[in-house]
This record gives sequence, C-alpha cells and structure tokens, in this order.
Amino acid sequence: MPLDPATQKIRAFDQVGTRPLRPDGLDKVTGRARFGADATAPGMLVGRILRSPHAHARIRSIDATKAEALPGVKAVVTSKDFADRSDDLRDILVNIMARGKALYEGHTVAAVAATSASVARKALKLIKVDYEVLPHVTDVDLAMEPDAPLLHDDLITSGVEPVPTKPSNIARKIEFGHGDVDKGFAEADLVVEREFKTEATHQGYIEPHACLASVGSDGQGELWVCTQGHYMVRDVCAQLLGMDVSKLRVTASEIGGGFGGKTTVFIEPVALALSRKAGRPVKVVMTRDEVFRASGPTSSTSMRMKIGVKKDGRITALDALLKYQGGAFAGAPVDYGGMAGVACYDYPNIRVVGYDVVTNRPKQAAYRAPGAPMTAFAVESVIAEIADTLKLDPIEMRLKNAAKEGTKSAYGPTFGPVGLVETLKAAKAHPNYKVKLGKNQGRGIASGFWFNFGGQTCVSLNLNIDGTLALAVGTPDIGGSRASMCLMAAEELGIPYENVRAIIADTSSLGYNDVTDGSRVTFASGMATIHAARDAIKKLCGRAAKVWGIPEEAVVWEKGFAKPSGANAGNFEPMSLKELAANAAKTGGPIAGHYEYNAENAGPSFATHVVDVEVDPETGFTKVLRYLVCQDAGKAVHPSYVEGQFQGGAVQGIGWALNEEYIYGADGRLQNAGFLDYRIPVASDLPMIDTAIVEVPNPGHPYGVRGVGETSIVPPMAAVSNAVSHAVGIRLTESPMSPPRILKALGEQAARKAG
Amino acid sequence: MPLDPATQKIRAFDQVGTRPLRPDGLDKVTGRARFGADATAPGMLVGRILRSPHAHARIRSIDATKAEALPGVKAVVTSKDFADRSDDLRDILVNIMARGKALYEGHTVAAVAATSASVARKALKLIKVDYEVLPHVTDVDLAMEPDAPLLHDDLITSGVEPVPTKPSNIARKIEFGHGDVDKGFAEADLVVEREFKTEATHQGYIEPHACLASVGSDGQGELWVCTQGHYMVRDVCAQLLGMDVSKLRVTASEIGGGFGGKTTVFIEPVALALSRKAGRPVKVVMTRDEVFRASGPTSSTSMRMKIGVKKDGRITALDALLKYQGGAFAGAPVDYGGMAGVACYDYPNIRVVGYDVVTNRPKQAAYRAPGAPMTAFAVESVIAEIADTLKLDPIEMRLKNAAKEGTKSAYGPTFGPVGLVETLKAAKAHPNYKVKLGKNQGRGIASGFWFNFGGQTCVSLNLNIDGTLALAVGTPDIGGSRASMCLMAAEELGIPYENVRAIIADTSSLGYNDVTDGSRVTFASGMATIHAARDAIKKLCGRAAKVWGIPEEAVVWEKGFAKPSGANAGNFEPMSLKELAANAAKTGGPIAGHYEYNAENAGPSFATHVVDVEVDPETGFTKVLRYLVCQDAGKAVHPSYVEGQFQGGAVQGIGWALNEEYIYGADGRLQNAGFLDYRIPVASDLPMIDTAIVEVPNPGHPYGVRGVGETSIVPPMAAVSNAVSHAVGIRLTESPMSPPRILKALGEQAARKAG
Repeated sequence: MPLDPATQKIRAFDQVGTRPLRPDGLDKVTGRARFGADATAPGMLVGRILRSPHAHARIRSIDATKAEALPGVKAVVTSKDFADRSDDLRDILVNIMARGKALYEGHTVAAVAATSASVARKALKLIKVDYEVLPHVTDVDLAMEPDAPLLHDDLITSGVEPVPTKPSNIARKIEFGHGDVDKGFAEADLVVEREFKTEATHQGYIEPHACLASVGSDGQGELWVCTQGHYMVRDVCAQLLGMDVSKLRVTASEIGGGFGGKTTVFIEPVALALSRKAGRPVKVVMTRDEVFRASGPTSSTSMRMKIGVKKDGRITALDALLKYQGGAFAGAPVDYGGMAGVACYDYPNIRVVGYDVVTNRPKQAAYRAPGAPMTAFAVESVIAEIADTLKLDPIEMRLKNAAKEGTKSAYGPTFGPVGLVETLKAAKAHPNYKVKLGKNQGRGIASGFWFNFGGQTCVSLNLNIDGTLALAVGTPDIGGSRASMCLMAAEELGIPYENVRAIIADTSSLGYNDVTDGSRVTFASGMATIHAARDAIKKLCGRAAKVWGIPEEAVVWEKGFAKPSGANAGNFEPMSLKELAANAAKTGGPIAGHYEYNAENAGPSFATHVVDVEVDPETGFTKVLRYLVCQDAGKAVHPSYVEGQFQGGAVQGIGWALNEEYIYGADGRLQNAGFLDYRIPVASDLPMIDTAIVEVPNPGHPYGVRGVGETSIVPPMAAVSNAVSHAVGIRLTESPMSPPRILKALGEQAARKAG
Repeated sequence: MPLDPATQKIRAFDQVGTRPLRPDGLDKVTGRARFGADATAPGMLVGRILRSPHAHARIRSIDATKAEALPGVKAVVTSKDFADRSDDLRDILVNIMARGKALYEGHTVAAVAATSASVARKALKLIKVDYEVLPHVTDVDLAMEPDAPLLHDDLITSGVEPVPTKPSNIARKIEFGHGDVDKGFAEADLVVEREFKTEATHQGYIEPHACLASVGSDGQGELWVCTQGHYMVRDVCAQLLGMDVSKLRVTASEIGGGFGGKTTVFIEPVALALSRKAGRPVKVVMTRDEVFRASGPTSSTSMRMKIGVKKDGRITALDALLKYQGGAFAGAPVDYGGMAGVACYDYPNIRVVGYDVVTNRPKQAAYRAPGAPMTAFAVESVIAEIADTLKLDPIEMRLKNAAKEGTKSAYGPTFGPVGLVETLKAAKAHPNYKVKLGKNQGRGIASGFWFNFGGQTCVSLNLNIDGTLALAVGTPDIGGSRASMCLMAAEELGIPYENVRAIIADTSSLGYNDVTDGSRVTFASGMATIHAARDAIKKLCGRAAKVWGIPEEAVVWEKGFAKPSGANAGNFEPMSLKELAANAAKTGGPIAGHYEYNAENAGPSFATHVVDVEVDPETGFTKVLRYLVCQDAGKAVHPSYVEGQFQGGAVQGIGWALNEEYIYGADGRLQNAGFLDYRIPVASDLPMIDTAIVEVPNPGHPYGVRGVGETSIVPPMAAVSNAVSHAVGIRLTESPMSPPRILKALGEQAARKAG
C-alpha cells in the first residue's frame, strides 16, 4: 500500500484499482501495432525452413549443392553451421536444428535465405536429405515400455538410485511429499483411485513466430522478434552463435499472444545464422502449420491418482503417479505441474512420483501454469467423485481441506497469507452457484494454484521537460502490463495515469529482464516500477531542497508535489513535478529513477471455478451454460485486465477440456495442424465468463500484488470434467471430453446397463 | 586520468589513446547501417512538401480541395493544422509551415500524404496557392537599410536603448568587450582596418533529412528520424503538435552527416501532422534541392575589423562591427560567432558590436562552430596583414598575444589551462612550416577557438551474463563517439574494448540528452560513461563483498577484478567481471550503472592551421599544396577520430574559403541548389591534411578530454585567405575566394598598376 509520507501511514489508493484505457489498445485494434512479421530492412531476404517429414529418422546426409546454386539463394544452413556443445543449451541447439537424427515430424533439418519466397520454396525442394526412417513413439505410456524406440542413445534417467545402466526414454524421475501415505490410506474411510489421460494442446496464439535478423561480418547483430523474453532470446542466440552477448541487440515487437509458447527460441538462431552467412537481413515467419508441428505444445500425460478421506471429507492421504511426455527432449513440467496440481489442500500424508518422458513429438513449451492443469484435473476429479460419494457439498469439502496461512505445502514451503478459502467462499456466495440445473445439465467445481514467479527485473523512469514520464520496462507486455505499470508509477508519484507512458526497451537500452512468464510481470516489474519511482522521488525532493536551500530530509513528496516538512524546513510553496521537470536543467540535469533486482516473495494465487454445462446425449456436444472464476489477485492493479486474465485462462481451459488435442497418426505425423482441425473455442462457443476478484494482499509486494495469469487455466479442465460427469452420470477421465469421447462413454454405459 | 584504486594515484591509460575499429564502421561501409530513409512501416504513406517559389509573398489563400479529392491522397496539411503560439518556438513553427507569408523561396506552404510518390507529386500540383508577391531582400547590408523590404511587421530590435518604435529587419544588437578602444588605438603604432564579406555555405551532409512518423488517434506517436538530437526533435515536435512529451517516442537513425545542420526540425512536425491526419505512418524524405533551399545554411556576413598594435606586434585594441544575416528569422550566431572569433588573443581594449539580421533566405542553422569562422576570417586576416606590414613572423606575433591560462577573454570568463600557445609552437615546429615556397605560392596561418559545450546527458551501462556490457547513450554518433564511449567504459572497468557495445537509445528508454553539438559528446557523454562505470563498479564491489562476507569498503576494483583490500579484508581470490556477471542473479539481480547530469566545465579548444597554396594567375584557380592542423584535444580518446575531426573541419573550411557559396538571383531564388553548382571539395581537390594533436588536459573532465569537432573549421577560411593573399600579393576580403573573385582582384591590381 502507498505510504502517506507526512504521516507514514498507509493511504488509500488513488489510481491503482481504476480501469483506464490501455496504452496499446488503439494500436492493436487499428492495426498500427507492429508485430513480429511487420519489420523490414533494406536488402532483406526471405528465410524458409526445411522440416523432417518423419517422426524419427537418421539423417545420413544433406546435399544442398543444388539449392545453393539456384539463382537468388544467398545462404543455406544446417547443423554444421552451429558449433556443437555439451552444456545445458544443447537440447535447444539440437531442437532448433536437427543433428544426426530428426526426432519429430517438423524438426528443422536445414534452412535457406533467398531473394524471394518462391525462390526459397524452390530451394527447399532442391535440398536432398537422405533419411533412414526409424521406429517412433508418441504416446507417453508406450514410450516408457522397455522395448520402446529409443530417442537418445545417451539418455540415462536422472533421479533414480542406483543409476540405470541402460538408456531409456525416461529423462527424469521426481518424487516429493511428506508423511506416510500407507498409514494415511489405512486411516481413510473411503479411498478413490482413478487413472487419467490428457492430450497435448497448443497455446494457439494468433501471431505465428516471426523475426527479422541481421548479423554483420563484424559479428554485430540485431534481431526484431515476437517473444515473451527478448533478453532470453538474446542470451540464448548469442551463445548458440558464439557471439558476445553485448554484440546482439534484440527488440521485442508487439506480441499477438504467447501464453508461455514464446518463452524459448525456435526460428531466431536459424534466422541469425542465415543472416550471418548471407551478409544480409533475413526475415523468417512461421506458417500456422509450422507453429503446430514445430513450436512447443503442452505435455500429454498419463496419471494415476489415489486419495483417501474420512467420512467428513477430511483428506488423509494422496498418492499420485504422473507421467508427462515433453516431446523429443527432457523437460516435461512434471515437477512444476505435480507440485502445483496438489497445492490446494492440506495433506497429512502425500506422495507424488513423476516421470519426465521423451517421445517423437515437438519439444513441449510452457503454456500458462505449465503442467498444473493436468495434475489438477486428476486431483479435482477424484475430490469431486469423493464428494459425490459422500454426498458432501463440493465447496464445503474443499474448505475442510483448503490450504491456508500456515499450511505446509506438499512441495515444501509453508504458506503465508493466501486466498483459497476466500475464493471458495466467493464461489459459494455467487448467484451462479444457486442456479437450479435441468436435464442433461451438470455443475462442476474445481480449485487451482500457481506459485507465481519473481525473477530478474530492471526498470528506468525518465522525467520529461513537461512533467510527463517515460517508463522503460524490459518485460514484453502480453496482458496489459504497460497499463498496470503506468498506474503504479502514477500512484507512487501522485500524478495522472495519462502522464506516464510505458515502453518495452530493447536489450541494449535497459538491464537484463527475465521472460514475461510465471505471472511475474505485474508483480516484479510493478515492484521495480514502484522502487524506480521512489528513486526518482528522492531525487526530486533533493532538487526542491537545493532550490529552497534546505536539507533533503526536510522535503517530502505528496501527490505530485515536493513539500517542506518539519519544524525547521521553512515556509515554501509546494513545488509540482511539472515545475521540477521544467527546471531540471538548472538544478542539475535530467531526473531519472532506476531499479534492478532479482524479485522474491511472489505470492501464490489460488482460484476456484464453477461451471454449468449441458450435454446433448445424441451428439455428445457439450454446451457451457455459465462459468465463474473466483481468484485471488492480491491487489488488482487494473481490474479489467485481471478479469481478462481470469476469462482468458478459463476459455483456454474450456478448450483443453472439450476440444483441443494433438492427434497423431500411426505414422507419427500430426493430423490436425491447423485451426480448422485443431478447434479452439470461439466467442459463439462460450457464455460470458463471470469473475469475482478476491484480494488477499501479498505481503511481498508494496501494493499487495500477486500474479494472476497462470492460475486461471488450472481448474477449468477439472471443473468442466466434473460438470460433464454430473450431466451424463459417468466419470470421465480422459481429456479432451470431445463429442466422440462422450458418445463412446455413453455407449459403454448403455452397454453396461444392457449387459 | 584514471585513478589506481589501490594507491589512489593517477595511472597511465591502458586503452584511451588507442585506435580500435569503430563499432559502426562495417555497417556504414557495407550499407547495412540504417539511415533516415531506410525505415518502413506497414501501410506507410509518402509525404511530399509544397514550397513557395517566391522569396517573399503574402499567402492570400490555399485551396487544397482538388488535391484532397485525388484518389490516393490521405491528408493535406497547412498552417491551419498547427496551433499558433507566442512562445520561443513560434519561429520554428512558422519556419516549418508558412503562416500568412512565405518568407523565402522553398518555405513550406503545405504538405500531402499519399499512397505513392507520383500521387503525392500530382496532389502538390493541384494545391492552389494565391500569392501576392512582395519585394524581397537577401543581402545583409541591404536588409539593414531603412527602406528595405520588411520581413516581419512586429520585429523590434532588441538590445538597443531606447527601444525602437518601428520594426526593422534587425532582430538584435549585441555588444561586448572591455577596456577603452579609443585609448587603445591611440597607443597603437599601427592600426589596420578592413571590411569583409562572406557568403552563406551549407553543411553538405550526404544524407538528406528523412523521417518516418506515425501518430495514432490516441495521440501516441513514434518517429524514426535522422537527427543530431532525437530528444530535441521529440520535445519540439510534441510541443508544436500539442502532445505530451511522453506520448512521442523518437528513435535516431544512423546519420549521414550533420555538422550542425541537423540540430533543429524541418520536416518532422509536418510528417507527424500528416500521419495524425491520415491515421497512417508517413515517410518524408527531402531531395537535395529541398535540402539546399529549405534547410539551414550558415549566415552570410558583412564585417568591419580594426586592430591596433605596437611595433613589436602586441595588440593594443580591437574594434569590430559584425553583421550576420540568419535568414527569415532571428538567431544568426553573431553572438557566439563574434565571441569565438576574437577569443584567441589577449586584448587590453576590445569592443565588438554585432547585428542579427533577417533576410528572405532560409533560416540559418548551426554549422560547426556556428558563426566563428566568419569573425575569425576578419580577425586573422588583419593580424596577418599587420604581421606582413611589421615583418613579424606570423606565429611569433600570435604567440605574443595568445590567450593562455589567466587571460581574461573578451566574452567574459578568464581562461583556465588552454592550449593555443602549444598549437602555435607545434605549427612552428612542424616540417610543413619550413617548406620553401615557389612562384605564385603563398603560406597562410590562422588560429581558431571554440567554447565547447557540456549540457544535459544521461548514460546507462548494463552488464550482460557473459561479462560484456551494453552502453546506452542518448547522443547520436556523428563522429565515432560510440568508439570513444566504449574506450572510456573499458578503461574505467579494466576490460577489453570489444566487450562493450554502445548503442544510441531511443527517447523513451533513456533520460533526456541535449543535442550532439557544440563538440560536447566525447566530453559530456564520455564523462557520464565514466561515472556510470564507476556506479557499476561500486555495485560490483558490493556483490563481491556480499559473496565474501566482508564490508563493501574492503573491496576495490582493479583492471576488471574485484579485490579485497586492507588489513581486515580477508584473503580471497580476486573475482572477475565475468564471474560477477555470471552470478549476478544469485547475488541480487542485474547490475547496471547510471549517470544523469548537466555537464559543466567543457574546456575550450584552440587550433592553429598552416596552409600552403598555389594560385594560377591565368585561371584564378587555387591549389592547396599542404595543410596542417594543430589542435588541442585535451586528451585524444581515439586519436584517429580526433584526426578525422581535424581533417574534416579543415576540408569543409577549405570549401568555404575557395568555392562554396549560396548564389541568389535578382529574383531572390537560389541559383545553385545542387552539388554540381554548389561545389564542395572532393578528394582530388585536396592534399592529405596533416595533423598534430596537442594535449593540454581539461581539468573539468576525469580524463582531460576537450571537444574537438568545431574548432577545426574556424581557422581555414582565414588561413587560406592569408595564403592566397600572399600568393597573389593582394589582400582578399571576400569569401569564397573562387576563381572569378581572384581573377577580379588580379584584374583590379593590374588596372591599378597600369593606372
């Protein structure tokens, strides 16, 4: 909360919590905003990528001589253009350009830069790749079989003792928990155990990956790119290309959605390598087909979830087995997903075992609360089944077990003030929870959690001659964060919101910033903005003190004015920010505030979702009737964008629950790489998503802010599943619960009844 | 000088004074550098400007209806699209778009934005301007006549008492000096008085003015522009367009020369107004013809110079009358020019009276040491004539009178340590001064001075994960300043030059910076860089202290390493910048250094030039045989670019002296608006320019740096004139001393001899 400098007491917010227009709004609705593919440079070439048609194949040789000889072709690159490495960037290196083997359909094998798209396309056809097709595996359970096709000869499972002697597709085993689950289950009155499967989904951002790269023969490069983290892009690309980090300047374009899918590199190092070889700028823009086949979807999973409870609904134990496949490289978020997925409740005894498995699919990437929705699907489905069995109100049962301040989480830390109880109460109190349901209708409840991240962050705040301010942040704005930053700067300085303009600085103009992810930006960049504003205020007070000839300590800042304070300060008219700005040259020069830090104490955010659906038993089609998101924002800086995050997460989760999935053929090829066949929810599929913002302040932030972007996608799959299960009277355990799956379940039920 | 932190003693420079490659070099020679006209944006329109064909005309009306109706025309703007104002920006407002009257040929009257250049051209022809042609005046002496055509009805001369009751073309009278000139002349053994005239010249930068503007209907704008000062462009444009300064983000392109000519706005506010009206980005690029007719050339002048001396060459008095015309608006640099032009010597008695006069010419702009070469031409010509008459060595005579530490300057301040004497001695000692001259050959000497500016400056230095650094400066690099900044940062940090990359930040990413002018950048941005590096070093030492668990004060920085220092510091291995960078996240987050200030104590720079010429009496053609620049750089950070500044200034000055001039017809129209008719020196016209860097450290800079960019253009016109005068035996008093003027002088001499 802001402090009143005169009284040193907490004062009410003047601006935080209001809903001004976002600074990027008009640009985005009028098309003026410049996205990744909008960049151009004189002499620019078109870069295109050759991708493996096979799910798994040894690359015996690549012959690009004909392509290189084609008039208009200026460069061809393959893995030979990237030095091999053995550090933690090797997987990224091999993912952006296959080395020796193609590990999934769509895996980059070569790339060309040419004077036109048609020449580039022709050149791709002239590159001869000699493949030896290998057996493949795309299913997580099959990939764990002892005789499964092996992706990597040298992949030894980590996290198991003794260290395995043979390679497998299991990259890692994790295990966490506390207590004694066997004892817990022995104490239980009811134990429910179920198996679950979820398919991979894609973030479905509207803007495909795009970048414009330019590297000179002096080793200096520029990159314009659509990304959630241009510093990450810079650091990774510089290392992959063997450049000094300082030699690469990266500018983030506006971003047409990311949701986690733009937190790594795909085409960027390739574009830079092409540009370096061609000596000209190179633009690479993915097609939608490439985005589906070769960017980073989510893990698909296979899970076993066992929960024991007392008759009153108190949980005695949870035992979970989680298998997440993360595509062709280690890194499936079974750790984060498992930890977040069980975080809502207070378990006396809990054990979670997880496996990170590789398959012949594209390397997974983050997607809002990476991994958490899957485990939450399993946990919240079993909880729902238990409540049904014990005839408990599902919210009351959750309240009995809800994590609260002082609860020791399964993943380690003991929670500080958190808002799960408040979201459950808000859900129960909401009119939606009281609506009577009809035939074929069902209601589902589910709660969810995300840690929220802090991370490295830098902000600069520069005062202009007219008293307006430029706020330079380094975290790409994917959800309205510029508006939130301006609100916090304006709040702290006591000036109108309109007087602050936030921009995303390039990597050379501002210090390092971690990626816009983990729901960290409003928290971490926001806190940096507040501290930068306080740094500027200190300097402003110093200037006023200089003009008045009094000590700096005798000047306080109050709602946009420097004021003398204290008995001996003297009697001066308060000096406005505008006056101080106009006189800055005379009082010592430009005035700026800066802040650099590694943010800690991001408060976790909990949510509870309530959804009503109606299932058509003839077609298996599920209509979402109403949907409610109750979530703890700590403090909603700009409530409209908080609500937008709640709604967006819910809608994406509805897509996961009902329709979205990667469908692989027996040949290991993706069968639905387009928005016609991979169906994300559109406006006509949805009701208005209702929201209730809960505010339990995060003590780790001056204004109490928690991140909100991730948690909202954690409950939907479970909530919708619970609703559909109630509507059809069958417990569904596979997602998406698409019409064919629902019809199949209904058919099996009918057969059982008939049988 | 850098301090050794262990001994607190001055240490030798490791890197400052070396000559590494400039970071922008390869980009510029390969064409990869992006200049003003290289920017593009989706949906971009072409902006074109309608200019007055008349030197002076009342604009009765402008009818743009036909142009607006032309398909493809998206906006037409005139003065009606800019709010009138009465503050100190009014002249700029009226200069960028004529209000009521066209004041010079080329004055902007209207502008269009259209979908193509051909539509825009067609549209210009469809705009009907009803002009009432008025009498005009382009000569400074004629403009001061009582019956001269009046440019402004409301222009009352400032600086005279009583305040005139009638308007005139004299904007301002200035007067400065000390002592009693009548007494001084009475004491003199010899008094020489001469009249001089100089014509206007143009900076002749290779890159015409160009910008890409984009303003949305939400009032937020972006501008990409070729300029010496993008903060100035931002502040001026925002005010002219009635925008908050924070709403306009300006990015400086690479710049193809400026020399002072890009320190103001011409097309930028017009492009922004067009974009705002059209709702689309608009690019405006001047043609060379427009650059000549409608950007900012120098003042032309008319001067009377009277100097009295004792027989031994000691000056007793100087009395000067300076008339500078600055085009259609007040602001001719008679003040700076007069003050700088007389600054080389110690005058017991001096009086300088100057007039700032308006004429029907484009508003003058700065051009290297604005105004100084003209007055210096007069002073140094008379000094030369006196030395000739008294048969004194011209260097010895100058040494007798030379300004030195303790000399009270005519314009006020008493000089600190300055290097004129050292440049005179360096000239005398140079082999060029000893070369014997032949028939039709002559030698000329002249000295010169420039104040050098400080000004508002901000720098940020950001440490990357691999220990390399990004250096963000806000002063466009017009002469190699990025290389100099990197040298100073590397020197201070004790790391290789290659590990620092300097970039020019946009106006929203870094605090306000004054224009790159007044020879201020290596001095002021350099000092800010040093202080930013020291700020970063303090933080680096803090991090090392944290790791070692010792007090911050017990850590010193030495040549790229943090080291424990002092008896109680403990015994730790020094920690390198690279290690500290790699561990920054763990020790508190990103590390940056910042500095914002209004730089003072820029040390002035003096120069002495020696030139030998040969004049062909048949054609009047002057060949420059050899040319020597001796100048005080304080400390030459990058000697190659210091020499480059010396050479560039000398070459431009040779152009002024021998060929360059604005030639007006009786109709008030410029007759030579192109590089074929306005002849700047090319390589084949010139000898290699010899240089001698003198280093008298500036006590106002940690490394002793003085600016060097301006002084080098001050002596050439006088030096060449003195050389030509010696070659032909006639004192020449008008520049340029082009073949026709020399032939005319030779003819008059022959006539006198014959007569």
